[in-house]
Amino acid sequence: MPRYRLLVEYDGAPFAGWQRQANGPSVQGALEAAAFAFSGETVAVKGAGRTDAGVHASGQVAHLDLARDWRADTVRDAINAHLRPQPVAVLEAACAPHDFDARFSALRRHYVYRLVDRRAPLALELGRAWRIPRPLDVAAMDAAAKRLLGRHDFSTFRASECQAASPVRTLDRLDVTREEGGVVAVRTNARSFLHNQVRSMVGSLVQVGIGRWSADDLAAALAKADRRACGPMAPPDGLFLTQVDYPA
Amino acid sequence: MPRYRLLVEYDGAPFAGWQRQANGPSVQGALEAAAFAFSGETVAVKGAGRTDAGVHASGQVAHLDLARDWRADTVRDAINAHLRPQPVAVLEAACAPHDFDARFSALRRHYVYRLVDRRAPLALELGRAWRIPRPLDVAAMDAAAKRLLGRHDFSTFRASECQAASPVRTLDRLDVTREEGGVVAVRTNARSFLHNQVRSMVGSLVQVGIGRWSADDLAAALAKADRRACGPMAPPDGLFLTQVDYPA
Repeated sequence: MPRYRLLVEYDGAPFAGWQRQANGPSVQGALEAAAFAFSGETVAVKGAGRTDAGVHASGQVAHLDLARDWRADTVRDAINAHLRPQPVAVLEAACAPHDFDARFSALRRHYVYRLVDRRAPLALELGRAWRIPRPLDVAAMDAAAKRLLGRHDFSTFRASECQAASPVRTLDRLDVTREEGGVVAVRTNARSFLHNQVRSMVGSLVQVGIGRWSADDLAAALAKADRRACGPMAPPDGLFLTQVDYPA
Repeated sequence: MPRYRLLVEYDGAPFAGWQRQANGPSVQGALEAAAFAFSGETVAVKGAGRTDAGVHASGQVAHLDLARDWRADTVRDAINAHLRPQPVAVLEAACAPHDFDARFSALRRHYVYRLVDRRAPLALELGRAWRIPRPLDVAAMDAAAKRLLGRHDFSTFRASECQAASPVRTLDRLDVTREEGGVVAVRTNARSFLHNQVRSMVGSLVQVGIGRWSADDLAAALAKADRRACGPMAPPDGLFLTQVDYPA
C-alpha cells in the first residue's frame, strides 16, 4: 500500500481539535472523510501534532496509506475538493517510504503564538491572536523565556490530563519578538511538547510581559514542577503549528 | 461641538462597504449606531476612504462631532463597547480641530492587496487574500507596476460607476513583493484613488504575474484610457486600507 505524506493547513476555530472525536468535528475526521469520498477507502490519517480545539496549523504534517497507487498531486487535489467548504487544505502531498510516520519520525515541532497588546478589541486578528489589554514588555518576556530553554521537568506547564510518560522535555527555542503590525510573536520549537505546554508557557510569559512576574518568578515556577505554579493558560486561538521537521 | 478623529480597523466581510446603506450593514452605519448608543446623539461619521463591500481596513480614519465634551479615550472605549460583536474596532480616538475632515484633509491613502499563489484552497487566509492557482512572477509584476507610477488618466482602471470629476490621478507607489508565509503583497499609495482603481490595477498586474501580459501590455492598457482594456478585476477580500496621512 503506498504511503502519502501531507502538509496540511487549517483554521482550528470550527474544530474540536486535530483528533477524531465521537461527537464534534475534527481535522483528522475531515481529512479521513475526504480521503474516503475520493478513494472509497476507509483510511486512518495520522498527524504529527495533536492540536487542541481552536488551535490552528499552517504546517501540520500527516500520513495515510491508500490501496491504489495514485499520483501524489491527485491525492492532494482530490482531498482538497472533498474538504470544501471546511477550512482545511492539503498544501502538498508526496509519496513517502513505508517507515515514515508523521508522529514518530518527527524530529522537531515549531509553533508560534500570536499576541496583540492593545485596549481596542480585535477585528482583523479576531480568532488569530490573544489580546492583552495592557502594553507588553517584549524585551523582558524574551529575556525570561531564555530561562526555560534546555532540558527540564516541565510539569508546571503541563495539562493535568497530559498522557506523556515523562514530564521531561528539551526546549530548543523560545523567542519573543514584536512583529510588523503590532503582533507580539512567541516562537518555540522542541522535539516534542507536553499537552498544553506552549499555551501554559505563553500564559506565564504574559505575566512577565505585564510586569506581574520577574524572570526569576518564571524560573521559580519551572523549578517547582507543579501545575499550580503556572500562570493563567493562554487561549487556543493564538496558537499555530507552523512546521514539523523530519530526517532528510 | 468637539470633533473627534478615529483610527478604525474592520473586517469587511459582513459589510456592504464603508458607506451607510438603506439596506445592508455598513461600517459607517455600525459606528454611527454605536456613537448614538453611548451618547444619545444622532451623529454622522465621515471616513477617509469609502471602501467597497468586503474590503478591509487596518487604518481607516474617520471623524465625528459630539455635542458633549467627552475624553477621547472614553469615546474610543464607549464606541468599542457598543460595536460588539461586530468586527469593527476604534484603535485610537483623539480630539481634532474643527477644520479637520477625514476625507478632505487627507494627503495620502495607503493600501495593500494580498495574493497567495498556490493550487491548494485557502484555509487560514480565506477572505483575507486572493488565491491565484499558478505561480506569480513577482519580479515581472513589480517591474511592470512601475509603468503606472506618476500622473495619468486612469480611466482603464476605473469603475464605470465612478463619480470622480476627473480620471486623472497621481500614483506615488506601486510595489509588488513576496512576503514571509508565501503572501504576495501589492502596496500602493496616492493622494486619492478612483473607484475600484486598486483592484483594477491588481487584476491587470496578475495578468503580468501569470505571463499573459508583458509590462508593455500593461502600459498600453493604461494608455488606452478605456475600461475595456483592464484585466479581470481582483475580488475585494484581498484589499486592506492600511493608512491615511494628514498634515502634521
